[in-house]
Amino acid sequence: MRDVFIIGTSQTPVGEHWHLGLRELGATAIRDALADAQLERVDALYVGNMLSGCVNGQENLATLLADAAGLLPAEAWKVEAACASGGAAVRAAALAVAAGAHEIAMAVGVEKMTDGLGGTVSAGLATASDQDYEAGHGFTFAALSALLMRRYMHETGWAREDFAPFAVTAHRNAAANEHAMFREPISAEDFSRSPMVASPICVLDAAPICDGAAAVVVCSKEAIEAHHEPVRIAASAAATDTMALGTRDDLLTLRSAAASASRCFEATGMQPRDMDLFEAHDAFTVITALSLEACGFAPRGAAVRLARDGCLEPGACIPISTCGGLKARGHPVGASGTYQIVEATLQLRGRAGTNQLHDARRALTQSIGGHGSVAVTHILEA
Amino acid sequence: MRDVFIIGTSQTPVGEHWHLGLRELGATAIRDALADAQLERVDALYVGNMLSGCVNGQENLATLLADAAGLLPAEAWKVEAACASGGAAVRAAALAVAAGAHEIAMAVGVEKMTDGLGGTVSAGLATASDQDYEAGHGFTFAALSALLMRRYMHETGWAREDFAPFAVTAHRNAAANEHAMFREPISAEDFSRSPMVASPICVLDAAPICDGAAAVVVCSKEAIEAHHEPVRIAASAAATDTMALGTRDDLLTLRSAAASASRCFEATGMQPRDMDLFEAHDAFTVITALSLEACGFAPRGAAVRLARDGCLEPGACIPISTCGGLKARGHPVGASGTYQIVEATLQLRGRAGTNQLHDARRALTQSIGGHGSVAVTHILEA
Repeated sequence: MRDVFIIGTSQTPVGEHWHLGLRELGATAIRDALADAQLERVDALYVGNMLSGCVNGQENLATLLADAAGLLPAEAWKVEAACASGGAAVRAAALAVAAGAHEIAMAVGVEKMTDGLGGTVSAGLATASDQDYEAGHGFTFAALSALLMRRYMHETGWAREDFAPFAVTAHRNAAANEHAMFREPISAEDFSRSPMVASPICVLDAAPICDGAAAVVVCSKEAIEAHHEPVRIAASAAATDTMALGTRDDLLTLRSAAASASRCFEATGMQPRDMDLFEAHDAFTVITALSLEACGFAPRGAAVRLARDGCLEPGACIPISTCGGLKARGHPVGASGTYQIVEATLQLRGRAGTNQLHDARRALTQSIGGHGSVAVTHILEA
Repeated sequence: MRDVFIIGTSQTPVGEHWHLGLRELGATAIRDALADAQLERVDALYVGNMLSGCVNGQENLATLLADAAGLLPAEAWKVEAACASGGAAVRAAALAVAAGAHEIAMAVGVEKMTDGLGGTVSAGLATASDQDYEAGHGFTFAALSALLMRRYMHETGWAREDFAPFAVTAHRNAAANEHAMFREPISAEDFSRSPMVASPICVLDAAPICDGAAAVVVCSKEAIEAHHEPVRIAASAAATDTMALGTRDDLLTLRSAAASASRCFEATGMQPRDMDLFEAHDAFTVITALSLEACGFAPRGAAVRLARDGCLEPGACIPISTCGGLKARGHPVGASGTYQIVEATLQLRGRAGTNQLHDARRALTQSIGGHGSVAVTHILEA
């Protein structure tokens, strides 16, 4: 595979954008990423999105955005892999450039969840699980995640309160991120008092429903210009596991996350310890823990200790979700994977502002869909 | 771009599969394509589908199918480009192989439309148009196509009855295709008497709502084995046009179709006259005409004459939709683009049975989404 580089990024603020639709959010991110790369246009647009059909009544979304952003007649299609859609869209763009089909391409992740009326968003999120064997019987997405957390607590002995540091760190990191939805720090006590959603998952375990868009411009080595600050996509991989939790041999091993991370480490000869930061898929605190373990940052059941001991803080051994993560920056589901790659790129370019890590050279990002049924992992290198 | 070859295909019958779900349809096509290529598994699965979220309540569909077909932990994601999804999925698989990410990959197009209750399918199909400026005001997909047909008739002077040969040829071709939904020939009189759907579009102008799945295995030159009968993907391109018909300068030029076809002809140095067959996107007779014109098979307004003069029949200058096309084989929307490539491959392999063309060496396929807002075009070569 020929090398692919990130030469432009953008992100809209994450939040409840009542005055903006999918079209405006996506087109804004596209235009801002073009400006960041100092480009007039790109010839290919890959859109990461999960819910536009269910929630917004809009498929053919990639064409809509290519049209709105003035990219016609660019190639454009949507990539859907549940909550990993934004990561998969970046992978699609990288594959198109690696294949030589395009010298420059863009991935944009976009989600507009607040358009959903009543239970539409919950029903939409549940479409990431098995409709016949899970969602159709009334399981919400949070309820299925709660089963994972309950099992984790049962097998490891950790209590619900022990997960607090994941959320506390995320909110602290988000406080300095002007694009984040929640910029108020929280305490372990706030976490403990947080209302229950689906036992043992409480509000502060969970990422919020929200809107946002982020974009990444990728190109071949030949297309890099002097003014660019390229970040290399050192590795990219996607993998899957069973849809229904009930068909897994072991609920505490996210095989998709482990397989895609392994492929990235093997392809680069790198190790988890070589990473300077990890943009984790912290949609629920238990998923953060399982993702850390699947990627080899902690043995089984030990990620909670990593959080408790402060190892995930900026400046510690493996800082995670340095801009607030899905938990506090926000989780516009099909866009989150793209936000992760944008934030990692900003760190590697030294443009992460108040949240900037010292001398960050290599970043791992992992975007997870379903309950670990699909994962897309990237290693970026400055 | 390194060369990519088709080494296996499959298709389920198209029809109303009341006893099968998305899962079974997709997994059947996957397993049959593996068998055709004499493979145990593939490491990457790209799923073309439009309506699984809206109609079936199932996103994360690619993971579901990878799981159901025993492909875990393969890479898997869904590609959505409205009714061009099946063509885009084949392009995604080809890009992954061309990039060197995988030596062998599969695209499967699948749609299960008969699960839709009440107006669900019509509402779902309308999500391919602009929700804010078209669908949201009550336009159905057929109604928007009717505007195109009315304009075509107005500018060219052709009457509604002049479109009959497109439908008559499609049904005649489908009669010998055991996978086709409608195997009864129709006459021009049947066409004339056909009930009106959205004036001037009648039932026999339009492709049916139905279910089906088709799959294609693609690989690198190095992965071809002695028993394969490889068909080369000589060119592949996707392009877009405005979403809303009201924003087009000229309703009778499908710019996405023209741009993607031009790219394929330029990449190969071939011309329309070099094609031995054309798998056209005949979702409505007027779209067939516009697609033929966009690809250079006829000047503006002249495709209807091509049909009237018998030039689209098997054995004539440019046979189209040799297995019945979307009109009579059936149009499970997100799968149709894959069916087209399967059928063209069978022709080039000399395995099209009763419908086999004499010495077919090169085929053009064009999959169109929205009302020409997106198109995916391929040239295949034996």
